[in-house]
Amino acid sequence: MKTQHSVHTRWKEDLAFDIEVDGHLIRTDASEEFGGKNYGPTPKPLLLSALAGCTGIDVASILKKMRVHFDDMSISVSGELSEDPPRVYEKIHVIYEFKGTDLDTDKLEKAVELSHEKYCGVTAMLREVADITTEIRVVE
Amino acid sequence: MKTQHSVHTRWKEDLAFDIEVDGHLIRTDASEEFGGKNYGPTPKPLLLSALAGCTGIDVASILKKMRVHFDDMSISVSGELSEDPPRVYEKIHVIYEFKGTDLDTDKLEKAVELSHEKYCGVTAMLREVADITTEIRVVE
Repeated sequence: MKTQHSVHTRWKEDLAFDIEVDGHLIRTDASEEFGGKNYGPTPKPLLLSALAGCTGIDVASILKKMRVHFDDMSISVSGELSEDPPRVYEKIHVIYEFKGTDLDTDKLEKAVELSHEKYCGVTAMLREVADITTEIRVVE
Repeated sequence: MKTQHSVHTRWKEDLAFDIEVDGHLIRTDASEEFGGKNYGPTPKPLLLSALAGCTGIDVASILKKMRVHFDDMSISVSGELSEDPPRVYEKIHVIYEFKGTDLDTDKLEKAVELSHEKYCGVTAMLREVADITTEIRVVE
């Protein structure tokens, strides 16, 4: 039996939608420039959010197994859209910033590589359309 | 100048992340089965949420231009994952349900078709990996 995921979306008003995901509420809207009210984020950056959360879970899990302790981690994901509709992300850049003492850079790089090359399904999906690059920064 | 989107993600604890998107907060976490605490939805369904929000904005906009008035609209998106990692959506099914009086089914179909074939960038991205199908239901 294959795993199924489902989300249920209800129109709220104008271009705004309430989306129920695993019992949690996500809201989307168009920007004010395009007739929305900024009631929630626009939909496309949810793809970048999915990528951040997916690789974040991988990297946190892998580093735990490697017994690498970090004090903090942040992940910034930026995407560059094509100019003509349908507008798709042509380039995606992921910056991982780790804070900690005596962090083993080789292990950090290995964890990020394993996520992108082997485990992260969101990366695997978006790579079909976007060139995805990564960068690691370490703050002592 | 090409349009750039960015999201900024901060590790919260274990496998949970806070993601800032256009000034809005999105949370993700692994499920309890995989060591998370269900602090937010798992990341992959955010892709289905992005698809729902994207096509929702298209369809609401197009129907407004067509002067089709509906009382309510809901969009359910389900995705079937591949079995081996990296796990990707192989099939995605989108069900649009409209409520209203004397709704013009041809126009509803046209709006959905225009979104999927022409405007929705999220559909265009996910179609590279998943077979995407649509269905329209009308409730008087």
